[in-house]
Amino acid sequence: MNDLSFCTDPFASSRSLPSVAEVGFMHNRLDRDTEHRDETSIPTMLAKPDAGFYLFHKDLLLLDAKGDAVQAIFDREAAQSLGADMEGAILLGTDPEEGNAPRLAVKLSDDAEERFEASGDYRLESVRTLGLHGMLPADQLGAIAQARGLLNWHDSHPFCSRCGSKTVVTLGGARRDCPNCSAIHFPRTDPAVIMLILHRDPEGIERCLLAHHTRFSGPMYTTLAGFMEQGETIEAAVRREVLEESGVDVGAVRYMASQPWPFPSSLMIGCYGEALSTEITIDPSELTDARWFTRDEVRVLLERDTNSDLPHTPGRFSIASWLIRSWLNSAD
Amino acid sequence: MNDLSFCTDPFASSRSLPSVAEVGFMHNRLDRDTEHRDETSIPTMLAKPDAGFYLFHKDLLLLDAKGDAVQAIFDREAAQSLGADMEGAILLGTDPEEGNAPRLAVKLSDDAEERFEASGDYRLESVRTLGLHGMLPADQLGAIAQARGLLNWHDSHPFCSRCGSKTVVTLGGARRDCPNCSAIHFPRTDPAVIMLILHRDPEGIERCLLAHHTRFSGPMYTTLAGFMEQGETIEAAVRREVLEESGVDVGAVRYMASQPWPFPSSLMIGCYGEALSTEITIDPSELTDARWFTRDEVRVLLERDTNSDLPHTPGRFSIASWLIRSWLNSAD
Repeated sequence: MNDLSFCTDPFASSRSLPSVAEVGFMHNRLDRDTEHRDETSIPTMLAKPDAGFYLFHKDLLLLDAKGDAVQAIFDREAAQSLGADMEGAILLGTDPEEGNAPRLAVKLSDDAEERFEASGDYRLESVRTLGLHGMLPADQLGAIAQARGLLNWHDSHPFCSRCGSKTVVTLGGARRDCPNCSAIHFPRTDPAVIMLILHRDPEGIERCLLAHHTRFSGPMYTTLAGFMEQGETIEAAVRREVLEESGVDVGAVRYMASQPWPFPSSLMIGCYGEALSTEITIDPSELTDARWFTRDEVRVLLERDTNSDLPHTPGRFSIASWLIRSWLNSAD
Repeated sequence: MNDLSFCTDPFASSRSLPSVAEVGFMHNRLDRDTEHRDETSIPTMLAKPDAGFYLFHKDLLLLDAKGDAVQAIFDREAAQSLGADMEGAILLGTDPEEGNAPRLAVKLSDDAEERFEASGDYRLESVRTLGLHGMLPADQLGAIAQARGLLNWHDSHPFCSRCGSKTVVTLGGARRDCPNCSAIHFPRTDPAVIMLILHRDPEGIERCLLAHHTRFSGPMYTTLAGFMEQGETIEAAVRREVLEESGVDVGAVRYMASQPWPFPSSLMIGCYGEALSTEITIDPSELTDARWFTRDEVRVLLERDTNSDLPHTPGRFSIASWLIRSWLNSAD
């Protein structure tokens, strides 16, 4: 209990877990300082000469591809000349590793796709692709996930859910207030559980439960996952989702790590679960297949490329892959 | 890693943790079956003779106090005669331990407080009080928390956040849909971290960090806590909140348990954190005091009643108390 050398945070852990450096969106070095923001935050930060901007068009981020390495942060002058809507800028935070330079997120004008399509100097990439291919430093991906989640939240929440009036942005984009009924609205984060279910048979052989989801186009096999419901614990949500999707009963649950997943605003809570039963009955609306795999069988899947026509596991970018690889590392 | 005997779920754990039976809202035995609901769910369930209703007025739950033990579940006839608005009923789920009897939540008419004030047969109690005083079986509190959270969500979300139109209840109360822009809205659950920060000094003496919050009326000392922000991991949120509120640097973070907290819709994610520094600088907008306590010092606080005029810890109802008592049990 007081063994602080055991911790669930892979960044601080000394255990031999696979690196989380490749897991997307887990590093965010910005200081948000949400509690000390007010109506002056945006104008003050916009005016700073070292302010840097992430420029979005829908779920695409603009990259400067002129140099050897792509760049995602633009200065104010560049942002304006590239068609950023500075009026709608939201503050992400300040970067303590860059002299507390402000970082903001801004949307590009609606014609951004046409404008940058033929440009060799700039290109638009989806946030998911950025995570997948490691084009940017890992510790920028957290801020980009934050930006993507926040911009999406503002886009989908211009009105007050309580009274239907138009709301206004406050706290530099960290809140929306209703001038009519005085309701205040914070960005939402939807907790979801994602779990690798494990079973040890009477011979001591461990297997994990991987599934092919109906929404997948290729033959990918991965963990089960689902949104938490109101009034649930994390452990209850793991058990409910696994039972619903696969018919397998789960006993012990062990939290391992979490990952922000800004599509649009999930928090993936990664766990192991111990199977108390092995018979599988899939929910055909969610899964096309679910099977038990030994470590050797999973290694075959893991070695295949994520574009393979043969069954394979998800990219290292996902917490699902990290849970699978952590299990592979743990024995045998 | 594959030691499934270690798990983070106190229900399934064989470790010598304090019982979570007294921690509020963690048990919910209802089967929500959200994924198989449709527009017939409410009428079908309402018509079942074994349907049971929780009756709410704002954040107060109606109790039948006629018998020896208070009762919170009313049948349809009783609910109607007590002034329940059956039109607004929402489905919580079915109870597998009661022959899959449906459980629904309904609001009472606006004059409920006056009507039941002088009644000896019925009384209205706040959900918080119910959790605190254990008047009802622990495995009903989860359903009551779910009901309280859902009713509050419907009350605060009658309009579409995307277009401002009036939305309609779907999936038996598990969703609201916009007939104008087709947006679908799920109930929100706000993840929050709550953490006991621990430090071991060079002599090997462990201390925990407890604080008196500005919002407390009495001299209660408890853990730090705060809402997660978008794009954060659980571990990053623990470090940010502790640094903001107390100035203490946190290294390793260890998840322990989670608790639904329906005031209005939080998920409390309970953790330990290892302090890397001990100097305290409180945020005076959040805290009036924060101090390091040895186990012996905490035991003095824990033994006092929660109504004491002397410093004390929170009730066993809270996950904060469970984190504190788990640490006390862990050594010395």
